[in-house]
Amino acid sequence: MFQLNKENIDILKEAIVNGQDNFITETLKELHHADIAEFIEQLDFEEGQYIVKVLPHSIAASVLIELDEEERDRLVNSLTSKEIAKILVENIDSDDAADVLAELTTQKKEEVISFIEDAEQASDLLDLLNYDEDTAGGIMAKEYISVNINWAVPHAIREMRKQAEEINEVYTIYVVDDKNRLVGTLSLKKLLFSNSLRSTVADIYNDSQVKSVLVTEDNEDVANIMAKYDLVVLPVLDENGVLLGRITIDDVVDVMQEEAERDYQLASGISQSVESDDKVWRITRARLPWLLIGMVGGVFSSRIIGVYEDAITANPQMAFFIPLIAATGGNVGVQSSAIVVQSLANNSFDAENIRGKLSKELRVALINAFICSTFIFTYDYFFVRDSNLGATVSLSLFAVIICASLFGTLIPMLLNKFKIDPALATGPFITTINDILGLILYFSIGGILFGS
Amino acid sequence: MFQLNKENIDILKEAIVNGQDNFITETLKELHHADIAEFIEQLDFEEGQYIVKVLPHSIAASVLIELDEEERDRLVNSLTSKEIAKILVENIDSDDAADVLAELTTQKKEEVISFIEDAEQASDLLDLLNYDEDTAGGIMAKEYISVNINWAVPHAIREMRKQAEEINEVYTIYVVDDKNRLVGTLSLKKLLFSNSLRSTVADIYNDSQVKSVLVTEDNEDVANIMAKYDLVVLPVLDENGVLLGRITIDDVVDVMQEEAERDYQLASGISQSVESDDKVWRITRARLPWLLIGMVGGVFSSRIIGVYEDAITANPQMAFFIPLIAATGGNVGVQSSAIVVQSLANNSFDAENIRGKLSKELRVALINAFICSTFIFTYDYFFVRDSNLGATVSLSLFAVIICASLFGTLIPMLLNKFKIDPALATGPFITTINDILGLILYFSIGGILFGS
Repeated sequence: MFQLNKENIDILKEAIVNGQDNFITETLKELHHADIAEFIEQLDFEEGQYIVKVLPHSIAASVLIELDEEERDRLVNSLTSKEIAKILVENIDSDDAADVLAELTTQKKEEVISFIEDAEQASDLLDLLNYDEDTAGGIMAKEYISVNINWAVPHAIREMRKQAEEINEVYTIYVVDDKNRLVGTLSLKKLLFSNSLRSTVADIYNDSQVKSVLVTEDNEDVANIMAKYDLVVLPVLDENGVLLGRITIDDVVDVMQEEAERDYQLASGISQSVESDDKVWRITRARLPWLLIGMVGGVFSSRIIGVYEDAITANPQMAFFIPLIAATGGNVGVQSSAIVVQSLANNSFDAENIRGKLSKELRVALINAFICSTFIFTYDYFFVRDSNLGATVSLSLFAVIICASLFGTLIPMLLNKFKIDPALATGPFITTINDILGLILYFSIGGILFGS
Repeated sequence: MFQLNKENIDILKEAIVNGQDNFITETLKELHHADIAEFIEQLDFEEGQYIVKVLPHSIAASVLIELDEEERDRLVNSLTSKEIAKILVENIDSDDAADVLAELTTQKKEEVISFIEDAEQASDLLDLLNYDEDTAGGIMAKEYISVNINWAVPHAIREMRKQAEEINEVYTIYVVDDKNRLVGTLSLKKLLFSNSLRSTVADIYNDSQVKSVLVTEDNEDVANIMAKYDLVVLPVLDENGVLLGRITIDDVVDVMQEEAERDYQLASGISQSVESDDKVWRITRARLPWLLIGMVGGVFSSRIIGVYEDAITANPQMAFFIPLIAATGGNVGVQSSAIVVQSLANNSFDAENIRGKLSKELRVALINAFICSTFIFTYDYFFVRDSNLGATVSLSLFAVIICASLFGTLIPMLLNKFKIDPALATGPFITTINDILGLILYFSIGGILFGS
């Protein structure tokens, strides 16, 4: 089988230069569209454009939806509205087509839709464009198979055949009433392996509660529901129970991956989704904001220490433990907030029980604070032999761990309450606040103990 | 429908006390097994045990596999081998049954298996127990439908019916040759919607390359493959191409979630998977190791600063910017390593091109270093008015950003090369190293500029 190694990429690049369209199409046809997309991402923009135009529409469509969003937008925008319309109606599900459309300007969007010949496809797309991309409506597709509960089984099978023609994989057959409200499911297995030609759908369908979501449901909640109940496909309803579409697990896997990457990057101080092969300027832009916040925090810290300049001149050893105090505050704060952020994300967070969370966090903090303070006091006692300093460092370390734990727990809860992504609280934000907090505690306690 | 609110939980708790077994079973039967599991997690251990024994085996089995691993192990270990055997053979897939078995002692494992009456089920389970839990073999199940390529279609349908009885959901029908080697798939849709009773499997099967994995493949790679190619089910083969089992997307979703949580927690300095409702001691144990590493790092820092005690006595303002230097080193290092860790996890990392990665990272670092140093130099110029200090801080900040970037990029690469999880490199580890590095640079440069 054709492999995407360096040698073959060079052969294909040459084929592009020589305009060997047939060779290119025949070669790429052997690959999965996700692999063709990976190949295009390794080419120059013009080469990628060439490939997309040369490939049959059905393949080009599947390849486009696998591309990085940025790359795809550039490529799609370089096509004419008519070309986009032709590609979009071919062989890809309506949810993917809507994603591509959503990135176009309003004018181009309307042009593309006017070029779509099948009125039903066009209206499905227009419908999907209305939903917020972070909701169930934003990731659902219009392609599903449904049968009316009152149909005879042979009639239902005929209707299903018609509907199945435009669907790649049949996961579930939905049973609806006359008002298109979801009332149950029909098992493909049952249909295939039993002789039920004389009955009606009502006789053989499964009427036990089908898991479903409202079209306005947040897409991360959709992911949690599908993961919890091990679902491959999930029907989407409006508030009257009318079936609007279905969400398949592959789209939810994408949502989960993006979500996990974003949380991880936020925790690492990267403010927008970047990858290691993005452009230098894009990576810089994603990283600079947190560094600058760190700068401001550092300047603040310098002002706070400045207040205690005399204390440092008198006891320069006070300066030795500044990094220890600041770093521990940051570490503890990040740990605490990470646990809250994660339980918020998993919906395992019991918002009513804030007092219980804080009291548990406090107990964890007390144990950690006790162990760390003892460690540092013992070190100071044996190696620094300055009892004032030892007391100052271990007492303030104790206070820092307690305060940073409570801050780390409360801040993401507060952010969440004000509908701000609590994941923002982890990473440099909380580190910076706790650095400052730690220094204030350290020098205040030092001031008292050294009597300055 | 029955809701799991506080009121109903109290009603059920009372029913347990009063031994109203029928009431409990009838009430819980209405719930999804994932919800019953959630309910059990809110009970005392003895209450949970009671529920598991009261429920019909088929429901108890599904509930057990949805429980937290810790809770499940305790419950399973409180059952007799005979009870476990009865529960395990009921209605759950072999992969889940093997997961439960794997946690038992060798002796109990053997006892349980000796109680399983169906010899094939017993041998399937024994077989599955042989695979490492982090491989494709560790998450695959033995339940799949396969037909021989030479069978006539009616015969194939009869065989499929037999096999389908013990399988909850039919995703794909595999076509194998006489040596049980996978040669293709059969579409359920095609079988259902076409009249092919006179043909053989060979006439109607799909022989295009089926995506599959080796039984020894790492389970994170399995997840990447299923996500990349939007697969719902993936066949598992041995090195001769013989079909051994299949992996379904719900198991892979679990792998992905665990993986994402672990990376996030490692980046936040939490060393083992914990949740906010775990016991205090468990949370403490997960958090303490990194805090102690931070302590050791802090003590190291204090020794380094101690070397420059005279410099600080002469210029106490040097101490003011210790937190700024240390924090920036940490922030930059975490950002760099997070990007490398993530591209390693996504397999988008091009290991051959290390020099290219470093040179790009260097360019990003130069821009960030230039902007941050200018910021801090301007601040010092206008507000601190000490040109030596301003030069020291901004020069060493520049050096710290460059070094921390390179360290942050190289360390996860090195860990990965030595087969250590590169995610370990983010979080407190890299912060601590960069804290120390930053201080050495800061005081060395300060020493030169202040001429001490």
